[in-house]
Amino acid sequence: MDNTISEAAWLERTLTTDIPLGGAMDLTVTRLDDEGVELTLPLAPSVNDKGTAFGGALASAMILAGWALPRLLLRRAGMSAELVIGRCETRFLTPVRGDFRALCAWPRASDGRRFIERVEEKGRASLLLEPRILAAEGVAATLVAKYAALRG
Amino acid sequence: MDNTISEAAWLERTLTTDIPLGGAMDLTVTRLDDEGVELTLPLAPSVNDKGTAFGGALASAMILAGWALPRLLLRRAGMSAELVIGRCETRFLTPVRGDFRALCAWPRASDGRRFIERVEEKGRASLLLEPRILAAEGVAATLVAKYAALRG
Repeated sequence: MDNTISEAAWLERTLTTDIPLGGAMDLTVTRLDDEGVELTLPLAPSVNDKGTAFGGALASAMILAGWALPRLLLRRAGMSAELVIGRCETRFLTPVRGDFRALCAWPRASDGRRFIERVEEKGRASLLLEPRILAAEGVAATLVAKYAALRG
Repeated sequence: MDNTISEAAWLERTLTTDIPLGGAMDLTVTRLDDEGVELTLPLAPSVNDKGTAFGGALASAMILAGWALPRLLLRRAGMSAELVIGRCETRFLTPVRGDFRALCAWPRASDGRRFIERVEEKGRASLLLEPRILAAEGVAATLVAKYAALRG
């Protein structure tokens, strides 16, 4: 079985079943490759009173896109660690009037390796990621988020 | 009809029907008085892979608690204006292992009046609010959020 496909399926199940709000948002993993991850979401379950995407839904989609990458780094390293978001700065740039995508690029390889090494050595480590929302309007929201891993 | 009760019912409908993700989170308005607003949410629809509350759900609940107050100021002033979140800074302090509440205090009366006056005079105004999550563990997350109103 192709490992990338298997990872994407594992990730989508985690983001929609273990985190039911991702399921309520009807999230799908539409890309997972050397560049990063892309989640695609329909507007309807995330709509607000103005017919555009609710800010909390955009924030949630970005938090999940960012979380996915260190989660996969830990999984590839065979490490059981909890991974939580510690803080984030969110900017909402333009209303989203249709389906949207949450994207996140992998951290630099050296940062990813150091993250895993620190979890191994010290039992905890953190990683800064910068997911964003892409919609027909262009980049609609950005997040700068710090994720922390704690070895179980 | 008691106007406060009527407002709370209107608010709850807005937060759960016009914004279906609030409905998916099974949010209820459990307090709306001179101090501010309190939303109460069960853990189950907002749970994550660790059995605690998903950060995006906590952020969404706080964004809605903060949004509720300028929304009600506009409604009381009889003004039709869109109200959106522009940016926010979120801190996740401790895992939430059960039901939780999102609370927000009213802005100072003078700030609330100035907000409405500016929307009337200039067609737009913004307001900074600081909702938070309260759970059995105490304050579990905080938000500093800027909301902007734009007259329709």
